[in-house]
Amino acid sequence: MFPIRSVLRLAATGLLVLGLSAAAVRAQTDPLPSWNEGSAKQAILDFVTRTTTEGSADFVPPEERIAAFDQDGTLWVEHPIYTEFQFVMDRAPALLKAHPELAEKPAFAAILSKDQKRIAALDARELFEALVLTLSGMTPDVLGEEVNAWLKTARDPRWQRPYIDLTYLPMQEVLTYLRDNGYKTFVATGGSVGVVAPYSEAFYGIPPEQVSGSAQNLKFEIADGKPVLTREAKLALDNTEAGKIENFRMVYGRTPRAQFGNSSSDDQQALQYVKNSPGLRLSVAILHDDAEREYAYGPAQGLPDSPVGTFSQEMYDLGTEEGWVIVSMKNDWKKIFAFDE
Amino acid sequence: MFPIRSVLRLAATGLLVLGLSAAAVRAQTDPLPSWNEGSAKQAILDFVTRTTTEGSADFVPPEERIAAFDQDGTLWVEHPIYTEFQFVMDRAPALLKAHPELAEKPAFAAILSKDQKRIAALDARELFEALVLTLSGMTPDVLGEEVNAWLKTARDPRWQRPYIDLTYLPMQEVLTYLRDNGYKTFVATGGSVGVVAPYSEAFYGIPPEQVSGSAQNLKFEIADGKPVLTREAKLALDNTEAGKIENFRMVYGRTPRAQFGNSSSDDQQALQYVKNSPGLRLSVAILHDDAEREYAYGPAQGLPDSPVGTFSQEMYDLGTEEGWVIVSMKNDWKKIFAFDE
Repeated sequence: MFPIRSVLRLAATGLLVLGLSAAAVRAQTDPLPSWNEGSAKQAILDFVTRTTTEGSADFVPPEERIAAFDQDGTLWVEHPIYTEFQFVMDRAPALLKAHPELAEKPAFAAILSKDQKRIAALDARELFEALVLTLSGMTPDVLGEEVNAWLKTARDPRWQRPYIDLTYLPMQEVLTYLRDNGYKTFVATGGSVGVVAPYSEAFYGIPPEQVSGSAQNLKFEIADGKPVLTREAKLALDNTEAGKIENFRMVYGRTPRAQFGNSSSDDQQALQYVKNSPGLRLSVAILHDDAEREYAYGPAQGLPDSPVGTFSQEMYDLGTEEGWVIVSMKNDWKKIFAFDE
Repeated sequence: MFPIRSVLRLAATGLLVLGLSAAAVRAQTDPLPSWNEGSAKQAILDFVTRTTTEGSADFVPPEERIAAFDQDGTLWVEHPIYTEFQFVMDRAPALLKAHPELAEKPAFAAILSKDQKRIAALDARELFEALVLTLSGMTPDVLGEEVNAWLKTARDPRWQRPYIDLTYLPMQEVLTYLRDNGYKTFVATGGSVGVVAPYSEAFYGIPPEQVSGSAQNLKFEIADGKPVLTREAKLALDNTEAGKIENFRMVYGRTPRAQFGNSSSDDQQALQYVKNSPGLRLSVAILHDDAEREYAYGPAQGLPDSPVGTFSQEMYDLGTEEGWVIVSMKNDWKKIFAFDE
């Protein structure tokens, strides 16, 4: 999908040079071609028009145009297992080679087995500690290089495609559409900023400094006379649960105008906080209800319950009551992936 | 100084429309008119030219052009007492009205007295705790409004001017010059991001999301059915000492290309880390050696020792050895403030 986006961008630039305004270009082309016509698409278009039209009662100055996107289940596939966890499983053998004593820990033994039932049976805290430990001990640059090298060869278990192909085309269109209208786009993930930031520009057009995630402490030391930063097995910022909006507001000093998410454990408070903030705000929740083209899980609306990316009926009802946009992947998205026919 | 900068920017925009390149505009005007000719000014000009000239061996792609600036003592005056602490002293009476029991704590009693000798005699940790407590219990938006309201009426004790006048004109020029050359400018302060972010755009042209500082946790709660974030008396990020570079790299996922600071307790590790990172890097340390126009303190180069903004001889020697730019305010700056004759 990236060549397509580049061509569109070039075309838009060309038109601007010919003297057409950005608004004129927008009016001529559908910025969200992978979305079916309907209330979800219309709500996004309306929000952008109202917040960017000078003289509109809802006009938002360019510097306040901030939009935040959850990653797993919102920008790309999170089933059957978070991509970051897939990376950790692939990295674990190298870690255990260096620290064989870890193999005795049940969490590492389970990770090493790659047996999803054994992993699912683990205590959540134990699993989380193993994850944090696996992502520690190296410099942030080395971790970034490892992640990007892994992404070049790793394949998603269902489609057997590189993970970049598993980003949602309709959401890529929303990212581009918002940026074309002066919005700064951010990732707000429960996952590790140290893992996501190294590929965020290539995958989403979002620079690393606009990635908010759970963050492990770095430690400054002088080694052989040179300063070094090393990732510690300690969490400075926990972006799960309410931490996602708490840390975003704390670190960036702004409340997003638009928030996108899908998980009750992760995004609910952020979607709620943004929607209830002063002025026109957009909260968008992605409901995974397309078992054929992607996955179907809830338990909202009677969809099967899931250990990954739970969307509760409680969040569904809250969103409906507060006027969030709830996106049905099945009905609102014409295509889910760029490779869809 | 702000009208002057706006006019310059407008003029530059006009020239660009007439078909002149940015490079041609730069060649015609001195971007650092408040700097005396000399090695410090030349080093900054050379760094920018080398990192922004396509085909140069030191060329840095626009997205990697990140420059970070300490605030106190680097962007504005830090003597005789940090502005943030001045704000805390002015805010303390209101806090004590709500919590009279705090008056019994020696730190609060000292703050309330505004007696600098009593304050200086306090245990550093006790003082820090009092500061954190004074800046807690409200929403981040309310604190931002309080800070900005205070800045409208507060006056610096020596010049009796609003604090915005106490920003250094040569540094404002550096900020503008870097931005005109595609650099994204950041604040990296040991102070509170919750205090600095609300005025950073107006004072330095730096948006809140590009302010890195010590950060107090926010707590998400539902009050009367609405979500609220409240500042807690707990530090999530401590940007003092090595924390400044640790947290910058952790949160933004990038190492600055250029780092500006002045304090051994606060900036030394950041300046050292940046200078030792791969590729051409610029580390600039501001030496306060002008007792007449501003303040003189070290103890580097035999300047009087100071409890605020210490610049040690050790840092001076390290900077010299590693090729940092050490700026003598006395010799390198033609003007310090916009109001200087």
